Amino acid sequence: MSVEEVIPAATALARKGLVDAFGHVSARVGDDVTLTPARPLGSLLAGDELVELPLDASELPDGAPKEAWIHLEIYKRRADVGGICRGQPEAVNQAAGARVPIRALHGQGAFVGAQVPVHDDARLVRDRELGAAVAERLGDGEAIVLRGNGAVTVGSTPGIAAARMVALEASAKANLAAASAGSAQPLSDEELGAWRAAAPELLGRLWAYLRSQ
Amino acid sequence: MSVEEVIPAATALARKGLVDAFGHVSARVGDDVTLTPARPLGSLLAGDELVELPLDASELPDGAPKEAWIHLEIYKRRADVGGICRGQPEAVNQAAGARVPIRALHGQGAFVGAQVPVHDDARLVRDRELGAAVAERLGDGEAIVLRGNGAVTVGSTPGIAAARMVALEASAKANLAAASAGSAQPLSDEELGAWRAAAPELLGRLWAYLRSQ
Amino acid sequence: MSVEEVIPAATALARKGLVDAFGHVSARVGDDVTLTPARPLGSLLAGDELVELPLDASELPDGAPKEAWIHLEIYKRRADVGGICRGQPEAVNQAAGARVPIRALHGQGAFVGAQVPVHDDARLVRDRELGAAVAERLGDGEAIVLRGNGAVTVGSTPGIAAARMVALEASAKANLAAASAGSAQPLSDEELGAWRAAAPELLGRLWAYLRSQ
Amino acid sequence: MSVEEVIPAATALARKGLVDAFGHVSARVGDDVTLTPARPLGSLLAGDELVELPLDASELPDGAPKEAWIHLEIYKRRADVGGICRGQPEAVNQAAGARVPIRALHGQGAFVGAQVPVHDDARLVRDRELGAAVAERLGDGEAIVLRGNGAVTVGSTPGIAAARMVALEASAKANLAAASAGSAQPLSDEELGAWRAAAPELLGRLWAYLRSQ
Repeated sequence: MSVEEVIPAATALARKGLVDAFGHVSARVGDDVTLTPARPLGSLLAGDELVELPLDASELPDGAPKEAWIHLEIYKRRADVGGICRGQPEAVNQAAGARVPIRALHGQGAFVGAQVPVHDDARLVRDRELGAAVAERLGDGEAIVLRGNGAVTVGSTPGIAAARMVALEASAKANLAAASAGSAQPLSDEELGAWRAAAPELLGRLWAYLRSQ
Repeated sequence: MSVEEVIPAATALARKGLVDAFGHVSARVGDDVTLTPARPLGSLLAGDELVELPLDASELPDGAPKEAWIHLEIYKRRADVGGICRGQPEAVNQAAGARVPIRALHGQGAFVGAQVPVHDDARLVRDRELGAAVAERLGDGEAIVLRGNGAVTVGSTPGIAAARMVALEASAKANLAAASAGSAQPLSDEELGAWRAAAPELLGRLWAYLRSQ
Repeated sequence: MSVEEVIPAATALARKGLVDAFGHVSARVGDDVTLTPARPLGSLLAGDELVELPLDASELPDGAPKEAWIHLEIYKRRADVGGICRGQPEAVNQAAGARVPIRALHGQGAFVGAQVPVHDDARLVRDRELGAAVAERLGDGEAIVLRGNGAVTVGSTPGIAAARMVALEASAKANLAAASAGSAQPLSDEELGAWRAAAPELLGRLWAYLRSQ
Repeated sequence: MSVEEVIPAATALARKGLVDAFGHVSARVGDDVTLTPARPLGSLLAGDELVELPLDASELPDGAPKEAWIHLEIYKRRADVGGICRGQPEAVNQAAGARVPIRALHGQGAFVGAQVPVHDDARLVRDRELGAAVAERLGDGEAIVLRGNGAVTVGSTPGIAAARMVALEASAKANLAAASAGSAQPLSDEELGAWRAAAPELLGRLWAYLRSQ
């Protein structure tokens, strides 16, 4: 069950330094969403109570973090998405602040697409309208940079979304290094296609690894 | 009580690598200041004796570090300040040595203002006159870079000041990355305003997180 | 026996962060190759079962990772090679994505040659033909960058290959720093020769150190 | 006694990642030198046997590392030096390979002089002649970069030399950051003088801190 990955994914993100005081992980459960509460992800333990809210909520219940709107608006648009991670990876923030696009420069970079879309509005996303804007900008992508405020990744499960957050941060570092060197060699379309074809297998192994650490 | 945060804030700064052998944390307590002694902040334990000195001291008592002047001169000018942190964050020193200004390039960067002022004199601040110069340059700001020698952050409590030191170092890293890439996108005035409006809530959560680590 | 270094070399690479979910270590054992299975290298314990396959295999046995072809094709061409490491060192990936060649800028950089060859095809190497292409490009070298997907290092034993992976990653970092600064000073031919003459002794000591950590 | 700091200084360098498989620490003891053996510094324990050799040795005794010549040649020229550290700090190597001079860009950078001299010969220093060349180039300085192979720092005791190695590596990082940003602001002569006047006190506190970790 996808929901069983929520807390392990939260723990993995915290262990990798991709979230600190903030960040959330969620899973789709039928017509509902199960979401971590407004607590540091690294403090969650197996069995802790999570926030549940209906996909078609018109307002957020007590105890739901306001960023829940991001999750709801994405799930509504994307039947293929079973898990979402929201984090503040340091290099992703640096790339956004430096106007450096995150392109796939290495194989794992392809796990978040040829170039990661950017929600180019650095205000906090705390209402439905901004949540919808993020979801629209994400489109059918696998990750989105929220300029000034980290990123969101999606997957078939929360664990796969967490593995994508790891790949996204590695890709942001590679793009910063390339920007600093002044040259870059993005994957060719054929290379990108080969890695994306292998992504389900490789992301699964990456998630199994992250979970076991 | 603000004074109860002095040693936890010192511990948090040490754990985050934002101080090493040097650095201080203080709290305002009525008409007095309570300050960590001239020891590495990471070596302080709950209950350790702190240095107390009156806000209107005309000379420092035995056992007070000379940098106490920085703290006294700031508290005298800033009724809103209840806690001060003094550290040597590595990226802040690198930015200062590289003449890279620390602007708000990401949301948390806004917690230390649109651009962090610099005390442009790298000599040690060990007397009242230099302490006053730092406080004047800080003005109504939340952080100040001491070129060549780290930074000072202020807050309503020592913990909030410590959270700002964490945000400042992250912002320094982002500005170095942008300088290296050769492009930067500071927050717009509206974005800056949105983050500054949310700062009390978010800094409180960041401090709660730092304290719990 | 070279094979006894397989798991210690795998452990050392994991401890140094040069592999994560992926990567392999192998040893030549007579006319066979002993290879780590498709598991994270950091999870292997002394005594764990390894994959054995004949050097002249025409297809891979069950349980052998597809990248075994890289190992087989190198061993067949290189009688001097007794151990091979396959990892995903972060700075090596960054250098490849930034088109920064890895030249010997410091002494230990000489342990992987004056300039490390690049297999300039980022697709996954999962069949015999691509494995042969990697081995051909490696030639009589000691390391090869697989653009987009880490690197391979070789040695007289798996431990020496692991020590070379450490040297390769340090060299990649140095080359990225030089690219960022915009200037570089590669070792002269005489300097390179001096370090390469001392390499057997120094790599042995480096491996002994890595193994003991 | 200065010799009592040899193993604590070795341990501190290892803990800070400024040495790995290689590196040495020595102390002057009357007309002799006490030196760590050819073992990783991090493996030395209190009470381990050290190498002793006379300052006027014309050849090295069994068990003495060949780099002992660096130590002997420096002690002979510098009556003020009571301790020497030899390490391989990563950023120092990167700066040397990038032709980035290490200037004092921040206060602690002044602990190793306005600009650190470079021994511009990357060959291993394993005989008396090269050791003498290093000592000559060091002159009356406090640190010297061995291009391609780390650095040497000196002090009144081994601990002070170790504290200088820490300051040197921080300064190398600052200089790389400045080179990457394309601008730098070295300390003025007055600032440099102020920090150098305070160096004995501050290095003593830095060493006390490093030792206690």
